[in-house]
Amino acid sequence: MTNSYSRSNGVQLAAQDAALLDRRERVLGAPYRLFYQRPVHFVRGEGVFLYDADGNDYLDAYNNVPVVGHSNPVVRARVSEQLGILNTHTRYLTDGVVSYAERLIDRFGGAVEQAVFVCSGSEAVDLALRMARHVTRRRGIIATSHAYHGTTDAAAAISPSLGPNNEVPADIALVAAPDLGASDPQTEEREFAARVDHAIADLRARGVEPAALIIDSIMSSDGLHGTVPVLGAAAQVIRRHGGLYIADEVQPGFGRTGDWWGFERHELAPDLVVIGKPMGNGVPIAAVLGRASVFDSFGGDVRYFNTFGGNPVSIAAADAVLDEIDDRGLRDNAATVGADLRAALSSLAAEDDGISSVRGAGLFLALELQDDGVPNASRATAVVNHMRDARVLISASGPAENVLKIRPPLVFGSEHLPRLADALRAALAASPGGDPVSGSPVTS
Amino acid sequence: MTNSYSRSNGVQLAAQDAALLDRRERVLGAPYRLFYQRPVHFVRGEGVFLYDADGNDYLDAYNNVPVVGHSNPVVRARVSEQLGILNTHTRYLTDGVVSYAERLIDRFGGAVEQAVFVCSGSEAVDLALRMARHVTRRRGIIATSHAYHGTTDAAAAISPSLGPNNEVPADIALVAAPDLGASDPQTEEREFAARVDHAIADLRARGVEPAALIIDSIMSSDGLHGTVPVLGAAAQVIRRHGGLYIADEVQPGFGRTGDWWGFERHELAPDLVVIGKPMGNGVPIAAVLGRASVFDSFGGDVRYFNTFGGNPVSIAAADAVLDEIDDRGLRDNAATVGADLRAALSSLAAEDDGISSVRGAGLFLALELQDDGVPNASRATAVVNHMRDARVLISASGPAENVLKIRPPLVFGSEHLPRLADALRAALAASPGGDPVSGSPVTS
Repeated sequence: MTNSYSRSNGVQLAAQDAALLDRRERVLGAPYRLFYQRPVHFVRGEGVFLYDADGNDYLDAYNNVPVVGHSNPVVRARVSEQLGILNTHTRYLTDGVVSYAERLIDRFGGAVEQAVFVCSGSEAVDLALRMARHVTRRRGIIATSHAYHGTTDAAAAISPSLGPNNEVPADIALVAAPDLGASDPQTEEREFAARVDHAIADLRARGVEPAALIIDSIMSSDGLHGTVPVLGAAAQVIRRHGGLYIADEVQPGFGRTGDWWGFERHELAPDLVVIGKPMGNGVPIAAVLGRASVFDSFGGDVRYFNTFGGNPVSIAAADAVLDEIDDRGLRDNAATVGADLRAALSSLAAEDDGISSVRGAGLFLALELQDDGVPNASRATAVVNHMRDARVLISASGPAENVLKIRPPLVFGSEHLPRLADALRAALAASPGGDPVSGSPVTS
Repeated sequence: MTNSYSRSNGVQLAAQDAALLDRRERVLGAPYRLFYQRPVHFVRGEGVFLYDADGNDYLDAYNNVPVVGHSNPVVRARVSEQLGILNTHTRYLTDGVVSYAERLIDRFGGAVEQAVFVCSGSEAVDLALRMARHVTRRRGIIATSHAYHGTTDAAAAISPSLGPNNEVPADIALVAAPDLGASDPQTEEREFAARVDHAIADLRARGVEPAALIIDSIMSSDGLHGTVPVLGAAAQVIRRHGGLYIADEVQPGFGRTGDWWGFERHELAPDLVVIGKPMGNGVPIAAVLGRASVFDSFGGDVRYFNTFGGNPVSIAAADAVLDEIDDRGLRDNAATVGADLRAALSSLAAEDDGISSVRGAGLFLALELQDDGVPNASRATAVVNHMRDARVLISASGPAENVLKIRPPLVFGSEHLPRLADALRAALAASPGGDPVSGSPVTS
């Protein structure tokens, strides 16, 4: 993981941070990583800002969970109210989960009919895979070659971006991701569909029938954020072979791309959709949505119950998030501020030969760093850490870790743009190109 | 699932409940089940009571998630406060998750050294299985024959209580559960260990090496709640064969049995422990705990990150739960009120030939219904629904669905005992034994 702290990097931490880190390593241990060569210790958040113990503000241009802003007062009020009223499970009748499901499904314009609520994007992906495999009575799953879909056993199996020690079993086939920024979308779409077709043949050669193709509609960890419609033909291919198309909207969903859902740009009707991260602004909630026929086939045979899934408190948070996105026009904000940010990034790229591409959609933007066609991961790391010292939060991503990932809360406004652009310009200037080293992949 | 609503049961619902149910079935669909022949519609909860829309109170003698009481004001205040301060992930340094991990680990008296926080018991079980398989480089898991451990793909695979359509793959071996109420614990312990030994041989005959034995320390869904120490020898067997012992404390943990953890009654030191349900009183949080050596081996190789795991808001809820358990003496309460409740149940059993056994630990108690040695599931269903109409909530469980499950929030006091005992006596009288029919299994 490129953007991570290592004790061996020689950075001197403030005494209180060093002490906290010692305690943390003792009780949380090896599975936990920290961002940055010099980790940041946050004690407070508000809107697009996080604050350290000394009261310094950090502009958050990275976190996609607090979509309606850190410490959002509407979310806080609704959750707090609900905690004083009722919090129980879905084996009793309660109103909130039904009303919210209706409201959520409405945002899909007829593409989905039913929802199952769970606690995390990983649980949602895991359940979508269970459903697809049960409904088709098949095992094979096709995913992209640097995908990230989650951390349960089944979700990690289709997440090659987790690194070489994360085993990809024989019932999974990987395909190179399409370029969502391709200048010739028709050709790109045809070629991606052909790769999916080949993957199905590969699975069958191993005696495995295809149950589903799962695609993150914005290719977050494949480093290929973009906007052109290239996924429709692949969806047709998997359907023609009897499998389902699963749209992973955990990252692009809830207005980030300027559309409600990332798959809308592509001509396809998903069989299942998974959503998560921003859904409750950080209060754990996620969901699987789909056509009633798929839910009937699974739910009729298999008993599924998620103790915390659809609990009234998480539902209150999710309902408040929809209110805030609507009331504050945050989907439009993602489109308009995203366009301005993209223009600013393009200006930087015009001045800097080491920036090979600016791409993305809405407020999910990427700058790729290359020198003479060679990915420059070390420069990406240097830029990310330089910006951290200037108190602006972004990260790096992509198969070669050379893609700067800019993905702020959706309350990020035009007024925040100059600080981000200035910090980025300074960081690029302080870490010039010309010494490309690619690293190992990063996810989040 | 025995204790569930079916449209075909002919029960007439109140107009507003019928309307809500119609809407619910449209958007939530087939995977969702409701408790009771006449589902209950709750709008409010407080302490050990839930309230319907007409203001009627229901005594909750079933729900183990709201362990410190419905709408607990301390949990509410702490969560509400934290929502206004900071809610972010563990790739930044934050104080709360470290302090809580220290406090939690302290409750294990040296049995565990580190924690990983996740969102649900299912995620915790799934991660414990990933860890065990990675650390041992083996695939085989041994579980009890009517176990319930969760609903992710990997957790469902070791949860045969989910029913016949829930496939148990070839790398899983099932063993008949031990009787935790056995009158001769030494023999029971030896026989259970022998069954585990046989299961290991079975796995090896299929070419699968054993990675772990996972046991719910109170056998919740095997219907065999009890107190005698019978698990130690089996833990030694799995270790001798190079596998890990995983203690599933999602149901018995956090003081329910009168001990902090269910495994304490047994002479064993678990390699991994999973906890969940009551941990945040309904705010989603769960964890895997274990020895640092296991965490080092997994975390050193595999990148694990859980977006919502250990978020400051869920941690605030969990910390408030520990405060409440301590400040109100709820672990002792489970022991003392549990003993009184058990005595009351034993009195009922003395009057009723159809009650074949009273067992359990603390405030997790069970009444088994049999007629001449034949499980009587229909009587269990009748009792559960009769009590629902008397506004007292319990459920039924066990492989033959003939075990009444009584498992109230830990704030259940002596003052609530008479209403529970009276309702149970009346329900048993109204549904006499003599017509045994066993059904299909239930879980939660």
